[in-house]
Amino acid sequence: MLDRPTKQQNPGAVSAALAELTALFGNRLVTSLAVREQHANITTWHPVAPPDAVVFPQNTHDVQQIVRICAGHRVPVIPFGTGTSLEGHTNAPFGGVSIDLKDMNRILEVHPADFDCVVEPGVTRKRLNDELRDRGLFFSVDPGADASLGGMASTGASGTTTVRYGTMKDNVVSLKVVLPNGELMSTARRARKTSAGYDLTNLMVGAEGTLGIITELTLKLHGIPEAISAAVCRFPSVDAACRAAITAIQSGIPMARVELLDEMQVRVCNAYSKLNLPEQPMLFLEFHGSEAGVAEQATRFGELASEFGSAGFEWTRGTEDRTRLWQARHDMFWAIASYRAGAKVVVTDVCVPISQLAECVAAARKEIECAGLIAPIVGHVGDGNFHASLMVMMDDSGEVARAKAFIERLASLAIAADGTCTGEHGIGEGKKHFLLPEYGEAAVEVMRTLKHALDPDDIMNPGKVV
Amino acid sequence: MLDRPTKQQNPGAVSAALAELTALFGNRLVTSLAVREQHANITTWHPVAPPDAVVFPQNTHDVQQIVRICAGHRVPVIPFGTGTSLEGHTNAPFGGVSIDLKDMNRILEVHPADFDCVVEPGVTRKRLNDELRDRGLFFSVDPGADASLGGMASTGASGTTTVRYGTMKDNVVSLKVVLPNGELMSTARRARKTSAGYDLTNLMVGAEGTLGIITELTLKLHGIPEAISAAVCRFPSVDAACRAAITAIQSGIPMARVELLDEMQVRVCNAYSKLNLPEQPMLFLEFHGSEAGVAEQATRFGELASEFGSAGFEWTRGTEDRTRLWQARHDMFWAIASYRAGAKVVVTDVCVPISQLAECVAAARKEIECAGLIAPIVGHVGDGNFHASLMVMMDDSGEVARAKAFIERLASLAIAADGTCTGEHGIGEGKKHFLLPEYGEAAVEVMRTLKHALDPDDIMNPGKVV
Repeated sequence: MLDRPTKQQNPGAVSAALAELTALFGNRLVTSLAVREQHANITTWHPVAPPDAVVFPQNTHDVQQIVRICAGHRVPVIPFGTGTSLEGHTNAPFGGVSIDLKDMNRILEVHPADFDCVVEPGVTRKRLNDELRDRGLFFSVDPGADASLGGMASTGASGTTTVRYGTMKDNVVSLKVVLPNGELMSTARRARKTSAGYDLTNLMVGAEGTLGIITELTLKLHGIPEAISAAVCRFPSVDAACRAAITAIQSGIPMARVELLDEMQVRVCNAYSKLNLPEQPMLFLEFHGSEAGVAEQATRFGELASEFGSAGFEWTRGTEDRTRLWQARHDMFWAIASYRAGAKVVVTDVCVPISQLAECVAAARKEIECAGLIAPIVGHVGDGNFHASLMVMMDDSGEVARAKAFIERLASLAIAADGTCTGEHGIGEGKKHFLLPEYGEAAVEVMRTLKHALDPDDIMNPGKVV
Repeated sequence: MLDRPTKQQNPGAVSAALAELTALFGNRLVTSLAVREQHANITTWHPVAPPDAVVFPQNTHDVQQIVRICAGHRVPVIPFGTGTSLEGHTNAPFGGVSIDLKDMNRILEVHPADFDCVVEPGVTRKRLNDELRDRGLFFSVDPGADASLGGMASTGASGTTTVRYGTMKDNVVSLKVVLPNGELMSTARRARKTSAGYDLTNLMVGAEGTLGIITELTLKLHGIPEAISAAVCRFPSVDAACRAAITAIQSGIPMARVELLDEMQVRVCNAYSKLNLPEQPMLFLEFHGSEAGVAEQATRFGELASEFGSAGFEWTRGTEDRTRLWQARHDMFWAIASYRAGAKVVVTDVCVPISQLAECVAAARKEIECAGLIAPIVGHVGDGNFHASLMVMMDDSGEVARAKAFIERLASLAIAADGTCTGEHGIGEGKKHFLLPEYGEAAVEVMRTLKHALDPDDIMNPGKVV
């Protein structure tokens, strides 16, 4: 096993837990190094810390049994969805058992009249939308990756449609959660709202598996709009693009997506997705509504954008062009990954009040240039959230150090602008030290108190969040 | 002092705390019975349990001092806004100090570009909207009463606009909260979203002052729509009205308000608000958008409603007619209060998945009739939330018993329909015993654990929620 931070465990605790788990789960418990490493931390640059074993439960009862066994030996449990989280959420710095929820992938109920559905945590968002399409419904949260819905809830994911449809917090109605003692908790009933007692749903959304393991989700759905149109629009500067987007929101244009790409991001997309976009700051937009509504929205946006010096405003109702455009947006991670041969892509995100966005993006761009780093910027402008995707040569220790310094600096800039160190990636292992500057001592102490009260033995994804 | 449940306090604790508070606050500490009773429980039928004193802080530091003094003597503190809550939230069953926040009524910041503002808890929603109007902005949550924003956050209020703009949970960006130890916590920064750490904001929204006292709120604002139109539409049955509303939501008509009134509610409104509405189940609607947009929404709704046997669909862009209509909706409490001379109005609410709404309303109506009670029903149809307003002669013990039994029965019906015992009124003293049937033992135990961890001496609004 690896060198690890010490943690109070009985000697032999892991072996004893694994023996009990093997007896119950047979070959659904895997201890090969390859599988353990696949469940550690594939999409980040945090050092890989594999679990002692990976187990594949098939239902909630399985998860309860796993947690009870591990709790009995004070062995950590780490829930695993698709591994697309970005801050080391699935690493096992204290060892323990990774619980891979991919086999819990049933869509249990769809209630079209209530605009909700009940799913297991291993269902991915694309699969859910494939199943819903024929019913005229869709699940709105779209972080780009085809993540699992349990993982998306755990990390408090959001993405391109947040400006119109909200984040996971806004779209989770209730959860079933296996608590650190193995008990199963239901956080709410299926009503659209409640004011009965403490909000356990939102306590669990974004808790990154540190308070319990989500084994069922009731999610809000939306009707597929009658018409969808897409547009691209370029601007003389990032600042002009941001101001156009803010003004559009202010004047009530209900954009479904409004994504900022800086010049470098456009260049990267052109290269990977075979597009011929002019290399200028750009907004990708999407409008949802009736046929007349989307036309009106697009027209109004076009007029308004021209006041900010826009050029080349193009919009389309054609599905093919729209899909191609948004596919390019969704392929950005891979576009970036292939842009600089041999580089590791390290994506970091912050979120600021939208009035601060243009300035914060400009400051980030300047820091990137000054540090000699290569990193396109893309932003969910409507939320004030943006990403810098650093392409880092990991064997260049100087560059690695400069990249780390940039991430620190960007989080500090965002916090200074009354923003947050992460809008949608979460804290994981990577951003724990920003909680104190962001929230102050009193709030962080409350978080620690909550964690300790609910998980006194610290077995739930230890080493993350607090 | 009154007979009270015993609670572990040092003898003389209250006197000692009041002596310290008097030294600091002088005549801003009031102990007259009249004032204490005004701060107990004015709009409910729960027995009045006045606090030992009422104190009027002027800023957050004052609140911290009050809490520290009371914590030192284990004396309860009960936050007070406008006293319009409906489940005994402001009662003091264990005595203690009521903290009336009405003097903390400053609007501290308005950020038009960010669509948010920062206010003290004593600001009422109407006053905030008066201040915002000239900037083209509004705060959307509208529970009817001109409640304080601190109180609205504490009870997890919502109301008529929830279908479009969400509840308090959806509209609070962050809070400053004085904790049971007197420390001041900030729950979040001003960014629109964050995935950094546990969601302390939503833990405090709806906690009814049992985990801390809100002393500052950052709230989301919306742009006043270019056009607003209102409509009324009557239906042959409550069922038809509900189904029309559900279908409208399903087909994506973004209604800003959609309120159901049953026949009796229409009769009550006619009598009080001098309207001549036909006495049939009815929907009051409001559409927000561009001029063309609201016309399209209204037309589409009218067409769709006719498929459900609607009659008399009327819509108007005129401000005067619209105001008169919605004033009638907002005056319902007073209309009901004046309808049956000598009766106490006891309003109870539940919320169910919208597919269950028509059936649940019908069942409620039947229970009301069978019990010989008088109670109109009004519903926020888009949320599945409805209210029965019982007019109870309090000196008729048989009627009081039947009213209590009805409230129990209605909550049970809602829970059986996968709904909640309260959509927007909260738990307070009145609905504590429904938490267990609604959530089950594991979740209620988690709520108790959270309460005990954050407020081990149980000084924060004791006897409420858990």
